[in-house]
Amino acid sequence: MAVLEKVNYPDDIKNLKTEQLNILAEEIRNFLIENVSKTGGHLASNLGVVELTIAINKVFDLPKDKLIWDVGHQCYVHKILSGRKNRFDTLRMYGGLSGFTTRKESQYDVFGAGHSSTSISAALGLAKARDLSKEKFNVIAVIGDGALTGGMALEALNDAGASNTDLIVILNDNEMSIAQNVGSLATYLSKIRTNPKYITLRDDIETILKKIPAVGNNIYKSMEKIKESVKQLVIPGMLFEDLGFTYLGPIDGHNIYAMIDVLNRAKKLKGPIVIHAITKKGKGYHFAEEQPDVFHGVGPFEVSTGNNFSNSKMTYSDVFGEEIIKEAKTNEKIVAITAAMPDGTGLKKFSEEFPHRFFDVGIAEQHATTFAAGLAAGGLKPVFAVYSTFLQRAYDQVIHDVCLQNLPVVFAIDRAGVVGEDGETHQGIIDISFLRVVPNLTILSPKDIEEFRMMLKWIFKFNKPVAIRYPRGGDYLEGFIKYDDIQYSKWEILKEGKDICIIATGRPNQTAKIAIDKLKIKDINVAHINARFIKPLDYTMLDNIFKDYKHIFTIEDNYIAGGMGSSILEYAAKKEYKGKIVQLGYPDEFIAHANINQLYKKYNLDSEGIYNTIMKQI
Amino acid sequence: MAVLEKVNYPDDIKNLKTEQLNILAEEIRNFLIENVSKTGGHLASNLGVVELTIAINKVFDLPKDKLIWDVGHQCYVHKILSGRKNRFDTLRMYGGLSGFTTRKESQYDVFGAGHSSTSISAALGLAKARDLSKEKFNVIAVIGDGALTGGMALEALNDAGASNTDLIVILNDNEMSIAQNVGSLATYLSKIRTNPKYITLRDDIETILKKIPAVGNNIYKSMEKIKESVKQLVIPGMLFEDLGFTYLGPIDGHNIYAMIDVLNRAKKLKGPIVIHAITKKGKGYHFAEEQPDVFHGVGPFEVSTGNNFSNSKMTYSDVFGEEIIKEAKTNEKIVAITAAMPDGTGLKKFSEEFPHRFFDVGIAEQHATTFAAGLAAGGLKPVFAVYSTFLQRAYDQVIHDVCLQNLPVVFAIDRAGVVGEDGETHQGIIDISFLRVVPNLTILSPKDIEEFRMMLKWIFKFNKPVAIRYPRGGDYLEGFIKYDDIQYSKWEILKEGKDICIIATGRPNQTAKIAIDKLKIKDINVAHINARFIKPLDYTMLDNIFKDYKHIFTIEDNYIAGGMGSSILEYAAKKEYKGKIVQLGYPDEFIAHANINQLYKKYNLDSEGIYNTIMKQI
Repeated sequence: MAVLEKVNYPDDIKNLKTEQLNILAEEIRNFLIENVSKTGGHLASNLGVVELTIAINKVFDLPKDKLIWDVGHQCYVHKILSGRKNRFDTLRMYGGLSGFTTRKESQYDVFGAGHSSTSISAALGLAKARDLSKEKFNVIAVIGDGALTGGMALEALNDAGASNTDLIVILNDNEMSIAQNVGSLATYLSKIRTNPKYITLRDDIETILKKIPAVGNNIYKSMEKIKESVKQLVIPGMLFEDLGFTYLGPIDGHNIYAMIDVLNRAKKLKGPIVIHAITKKGKGYHFAEEQPDVFHGVGPFEVSTGNNFSNSKMTYSDVFGEEIIKEAKTNEKIVAITAAMPDGTGLKKFSEEFPHRFFDVGIAEQHATTFAAGLAAGGLKPVFAVYSTFLQRAYDQVIHDVCLQNLPVVFAIDRAGVVGEDGETHQGIIDISFLRVVPNLTILSPKDIEEFRMMLKWIFKFNKPVAIRYPRGGDYLEGFIKYDDIQYSKWEILKEGKDICIIATGRPNQTAKIAIDKLKIKDINVAHINARFIKPLDYTMLDNIFKDYKHIFTIEDNYIAGGMGSSILEYAAKKEYKGKIVQLGYPDEFIAHANINQLYKKYNLDSEGIYNTIMKQI
Repeated sequence: MAVLEKVNYPDDIKNLKTEQLNILAEEIRNFLIENVSKTGGHLASNLGVVELTIAINKVFDLPKDKLIWDVGHQCYVHKILSGRKNRFDTLRMYGGLSGFTTRKESQYDVFGAGHSSTSISAALGLAKARDLSKEKFNVIAVIGDGALTGGMALEALNDAGASNTDLIVILNDNEMSIAQNVGSLATYLSKIRTNPKYITLRDDIETILKKIPAVGNNIYKSMEKIKESVKQLVIPGMLFEDLGFTYLGPIDGHNIYAMIDVLNRAKKLKGPIVIHAITKKGKGYHFAEEQPDVFHGVGPFEVSTGNNFSNSKMTYSDVFGEEIIKEAKTNEKIVAITAAMPDGTGLKKFSEEFPHRFFDVGIAEQHATTFAAGLAAGGLKPVFAVYSTFLQRAYDQVIHDVCLQNLPVVFAIDRAGVVGEDGETHQGIIDISFLRVVPNLTILSPKDIEEFRMMLKWIFKFNKPVAIRYPRGGDYLEGFIKYDDIQYSKWEILKEGKDICIIATGRPNQTAKIAIDKLKIKDINVAHINARFIKPLDYTMLDNIFKDYKHIFTIEDNYIAGGMGSSILEYAAKKEYKGKIVQLGYPDEFIAHANINQLYKKYNLDSEGIYNTIMKQI
């Protein structure tokens, strides 16, 4: 690590000789592989931007020039080169470096990220602020071709393209989002990449023109012939030019010198510019190059074999994948939708088994939701599998296109609850609050995987808008004894008690059960209710609970504000319940990265926390 | 009305001779102007699609073929031609026809609308469902050029363009959303419209090519020269072709015969198709042609003069417009953002006075929000003025890009509360519920316009994320006596009382005041608290209220679920308040169109409703 050793800040790169830059790239790659193999994290995307990041640091004057990373999956090299190399072994750990850019962490992180497709909007904002403040600096956004399929990135292109503001957008084109990219933009970019014709464009046009008969009276036909002919040619980046950008590319994003060259050119040009850099996800680590989707986000792994150490415990996502396949075999109305996450959501096998009934729509949750509503209006039973925080992107569509129209779309909400290492932007702890207020929507959450299977079977037959939320990972505790049949709006009494009643929803039922067992030893007899339905509540059972118990504890893997407990409070107020209701859940703050166990502990959702909360209250 | 008289359903058009179609168009126009002048509603957009709608009805077999209108601003002609002509005088009235397409209302309304940019997603869903069910019919989406700037429409284009599914998208290009269209897509479309060159494309290319020196070794330079040359030409619709669509156009959308011709051609083609129809918003009614933005949505007006009868009472939007201008004069950090609604939000004058500090970003709430975050990160004080329901489109961006980063963006949330005639899709009654759960966000709402001014002044100086929600229209009641200074998190005691306390937020304070005065006559002494801050609550004052009052009524122009009252319940539970809390607000259902007074009455938010609720409880 002869070069990297001396590099801590962008200025250290400025002084390097050009031949040293490639050595630096090599060393950073090794550093990345070595470190991420221990901490886990996003690997493949970062290996793809090593040269690109070095070139940006060489050409631009960071942090005076503003660099914005889209999503942040690919900001590790940037972090290494901006004073955070020595803390890199704390990546994604409690108190350690965030896996994404965050303004709190460094002045080099100009804009925080986590969800896709925001960088051009943010960059345009910074550029306009610069112009109004009469300052001088460059603003650079780096966005993947996957992120470009997100609607807000396209909204931003439309706005920026007409803005006359100096702004450099680097399109980091690796043909992937997390999985293989989809959609016509991807096809378009791939044509640019692969078509060798463009350098002989002139000759081609001439040849083609000679074959076209003179334009006659039939405008349609002549026009179409000409268009067809011209379409055979690829004028690189014309689409971006049509959208008001100056297009530079395509450029080999792994060629530092070419990248430096094109960045220097972009710096001199005026107005909005797109640099189209072609990179390879996983570059330089052959396991990652071969399986960039697998190495997109990884747990710790063995460098020499690429094998990862994570246990192979059954996850909720796996189970979802299994159950939807089972159902689809007998129910041909079932179709599945993902917004660019076939793997993460557990739909990969479904996509292989039912390719025509599987839709990867790109990083496009809004479209996914309304597309699902359209499928449902067409008589099918669409299941949109989506992470809790990404569903935030489609809130309006959930309300208007699905629930208002009462269409039977299933929202399979994965990563509900805290997700751990991905941190603040990925904690799925708002969905109960924002969904339960939407009329016509039914919301469920299973206490464990066994019940999850039961609920999915039930849901696939339920003919109205329905959401099921389930957590990242698998179960803590297996072997609940009771598994009543699922009935609309009905909760399950796991244990009767005296005076004190716990109403828990989802996986926290597992920690609650352990706590209840501990309390029993202390002769405290706590009832345990599994709130299978978050909406509607089981009002009949609640009436009984209000009658029988003076002390209710609600437990959920969601913010306290507006959560299930809050919903119970609303009903309790209506019923003039005079007992005490204590809500367990997350307080009003953003929750940083740490592992799930640490977070459960910190926020009293582990068995000890529940135990202590109850002991303190009584 | 010789022709229209006999036309009630699409089949009646099929039998018309072609020369009768133009007469029909004329009669529909008169019918529209006549009716909307009485009921109010969306006029200009509907005048623009008369011929287009007739042509669709002539060529396609509705409702077997599926027709989807984007937004629904322009569905009146469609309604007239699908069995609803005779109910047209009930438009937007309580129990009458909806102003938008709704599946409940008619089988001809294949997909409901209200918010922009959803039609291609829904159409693609219906088309895919058709293919999987092995049915045969056409799917047609009609989308405006304005709506095309919405991200989800672009997401859908990207998906549909690669889909190989038969699908017809009619781009209704009138150069407007509600106001003049913005962005590079608009520029692009305008080039197609105005460039007469395309019919002599061949000659032009030849001429240009002759001027270009042979391609040398310097690929950049040669390519750029060629590109620049080719860019001077307009190959119509190449951008759509690049996105995988077959482009037909541009076509005069007011020429019924040309429209019929192109629709028939589209019917025969395979795969996704864009028909680019050029129309004029307001066509045929010269006041509307001249001021299409003013006649986009109107109250009743006089046909002969175009003057409208609505009273000129000061609205909250007007006041917002005034105050932001005042502030901007001394505070040069203030900038304003709208998502295609400079008029509706009251920002028109600001845009004229401070053109460089005003940003209309298109129908693009997601981009608007993150762009605002970027501006704030750049040191400015951005104010995003947006209707409550449209902010639902930017929920994720509010959470991640603004609040997580704690950036000082102001959300000026207009049309909060029920909005009346626009109905279900536009009632702004969820925002308290979905916003109050977001950490770092401060939320206010004024009791009346006077206080609104005070709050705006305060907000413009507040250096954190902040939302202020205010209703459509103006005040019911003027002349509150108390106007305490605005202090962070502090509520205002409008009246002390005994035993009973009303905590109201926003305009419902006005109906509450009237109710309290009535109750006083009955010797019932009710305290009146103005909850200026919805988040954070005034916990100190709440402690006192819990101590002094046994009966609390919370009143808000929002759903009960998750609303401000619910937030108070959470605190009351924590404090073990033993009194009674009654929540006034909207129940768990979608709320159809009717005027605001009718809705307040129906849901007990008028003074009588509040009075009766209290009388019943005590």
